Amino acid sequence: MASSSDNEEVRVLGKWASPFSNRIDLALKLKGVPYNYSEEDLANKSLDLLKYNPVHKKVPVLVHNGNSIAESLVILEYIDEVWNNNNNHAFLPQDPYHRALARFWCKTLDDKILPAIWNACWSDEKGREKAVEEALEALKILQDELKDKKFFGGETIGLVDIAANFIGYWVSILQEIAGLELLTIEKFPKLYKWSQEYINHPVIKEGLPPRDELFAFFKASAKK
Amino acid sequence: MASSSDNEEVRVLGKWASPFSNRIDLALKLKGVPYNYSEEDLANKSLDLLKYNPVHKKVPVLVHNGNSIAESLVILEYIDEVWNNNNNHAFLPQDPYHRALARFWCKTLDDKILPAIWNACWSDEKGREKAVEEALEALKILQDELKDKKFFGGETIGLVDIAANFIGYWVSILQEIAGLELLTIEKFPKLYKWSQEYINHPVIKEGLPPRDELFAFFKASAKK
Repeated sequence: MASSSDNEEVRVLGKWASPFSNRIDLALKLKGVPYNYSEEDLANKSLDLLKYNPVHKKVPVLVHNGNSIAESLVILEYIDEVWNNNNNHAFLPQDPYHRALARFWCKTLDDKILPAIWNACWSDEKGREKAVEEALEALKILQDELKDKKFFGGETIGLVDIAANFIGYWVSILQEIAGLELLTIEKFPKLYKWSQEYINHPVIKEGLPPRDELFAFFKASAKK
Repeated sequence: MASSSDNEEVRVLGKWASPFSNRIDLALKLKGVPYNYSEEDLANKSLDLLKYNPVHKKVPVLVHNGNSIAESLVILEYIDEVWNNNNNHAFLPQDPYHRALARFWCKTLDDKILPAIWNACWSDEKGREKAVEEALEALKILQDELKDKKFFGGETIGLVDIAANFIGYWVSILQEIAGLELLTIEKFPKLYKWSQEYINHPVIKEGLPPRDELFAFFKASAKK
């Protein structure tokens, strides 16, 4: 395994309003890794983005000593493997079965849970009832997995917590803009409590984009 | 890390014609792990499938000493981590960057490359031209990644090779049924050569379902 050193170059190509891109900022901050951040204009992608992620041309991209990696979940595991000295805030547990469960929930978040909530927040009137029903089902599935734990990772923030960044912070903004009640204390008390623990964690709090700016950004998108 | 022992129970819930399900058979055979296989009727799912994969209710599922894991790529990494004695046919390399690249390609296969080829093979006349173009682009991306290696894993079959199971074997059957020329020796000489190396690898050859049965199965599906 590689280990961290003082003279390495760590660079993130990201988009400030993206919860996927923000996952990488949060992970590096949790590990205490300094990095340079380049904000991408997705309407006019940089030559670096096209060079470092030629297959998908999407953010986030991590460039570490010239080696580029795309896809946020792949980047998160890389960060966990590279900056793992003294079990430095490990994102994944050691046991293979618990590692597999964490990977399963990350994948399920990206493939099923986040799209369901996103669709509900942007649905038109006609499709809204069904989309909301699916979003609520998805949140129930996630809350059932959380059980009575403080974080999905147990006592500390793990891979699934970072992957659930969208649920922890973005959902409250998007549901307000859409006029929906999805993740509320009444409907999902445990998951709501998790979201509060999550956004108030000192490193996470520091690494999230300002709520008012996100609100304005998505409000403007909603009008289009 | 857990290690293998003689009195453990390994069970796979699968569907013989699914390239995703077959990934798990191949991985266990490559590792030399004996297992019990249960064929699922997806039109009438077993109580075990609903119990072991309540979120997605899909094959494949691995049940190891009572612990269940779903999602084929997650299962493959689990198998690689559990049965890793003496670096026993490791699916992933040791270096974090090369591990990240392998994970990136597995994800890109499932999210982009396989759907593009599947869509082309099942496209109607109207959408066919565009779908075929996208499938050919996807195959080009994959061939560019293979470069001049024997396998995606280098000299031995790795995680990406197993994830590309559909490309190695299923595509030749589906394109014949659809009357398309996608993965041919003329269009993609290196990738075609890889597919031949892959299906002729002694363990893979032994673990693939019979071609004539797959052909009949998908031919019947195409008529519906």
